[in-house]
Amino acid sequence: MTKLAYDDLTEGSVIALGSKTVLPDEIIEFAQEFDPQPMHLDEAAGRASILGGLSASGWHTCAMFMRLLCDGFLLDSSSQGSPGLEYVRWKRPVLAGDTLTGRSTVTGRRLSKSRPTVGLVTIRSELANQRGETVLELENTGMFLTREALS
Amino acid sequence: MTKLAYDDLTEGSVIALGSKTVLPDEIIEFAQEFDPQPMHLDEAAGRASILGGLSASGWHTCAMFMRLLCDGFLLDSSSQGSPGLEYVRWKRPVLAGDTLTGRSTVTGRRLSKSRPTVGLVTIRSELANQRGETVLELENTGMFLTREALS
Repeated sequence: MTKLAYDDLTEGSVIALGSKTVLPDEIIEFAQEFDPQPMHLDEAAGRASILGGLSASGWHTCAMFMRLLCDGFLLDSSSQGSPGLEYVRWKRPVLAGDTLTGRSTVTGRRLSKSRPTVGLVTIRSELANQRGETVLELENTGMFLTREALS
Repeated sequence: MTKLAYDDLTEGSVIALGSKTVLPDEIIEFAQEFDPQPMHLDEAAGRASILGGLSASGWHTCAMFMRLLCDGFLLDSSSQGSPGLEYVRWKRPVLAGDTLTGRSTVTGRRLSKSRPTVGLVTIRSELANQRGETVLELENTGMFLTREALS
């Protein structure tokens, strides 16, 4: 297998990221450690909240997205990490039992001025639920080695 | 205890968030579930990487920040959740054994036009390590009930 390099991530490229069903125990376990707000810990508290049910922490949704990104292409790429995120939008609640499917689109790219073997790739990604509604949208810039640097 | 409301979050307010020491097992456990890149899973792979040691996933750093935010003030506030993040900057590696200390600053605020009992508060937050170096900076907009709506 040839690793995905900067050269392969052309503007407009779309990469399917696979799916993940969100289990109630996973929502609660994440929340207990990182985001212990009632609507992430308890079904009744979730139903009483604006979110309408036991709902994943927004950070948990981001973490599940990252796993889909890793399995979708990042672990088989020349990725050199990311300096950060341009924005994150938590657009709809993620409820226990939802199945999330991811998609990434290359929206910009350029070679690094200081490190010519590295390209900076801007990637917009979405997670949609089983009804096709977008629940998460975010954009980040990743650093990828060029094909030449890999060989 | 009176809950912190929109009215209390005046522009320029600074809130100390407490500290968290990052344990190697926590780094590995998070990475196995959400971000299984080698530098987050293994000390030797981390040392061989640009990060210089076993290093926390950027998403793990965000999740640890969220816990400090919850314990620092969010769980004792009138928070109604957040629609998203303006940006996230992973500025330096977070290595096993680092102690992170958080701080949030209110950088903007306004009442919602559609829901006059809710205020939108823009908060810039940082985590610094034991050497005082900023490792994470992010900005988000949170929704908080007004004091009047709480009473």
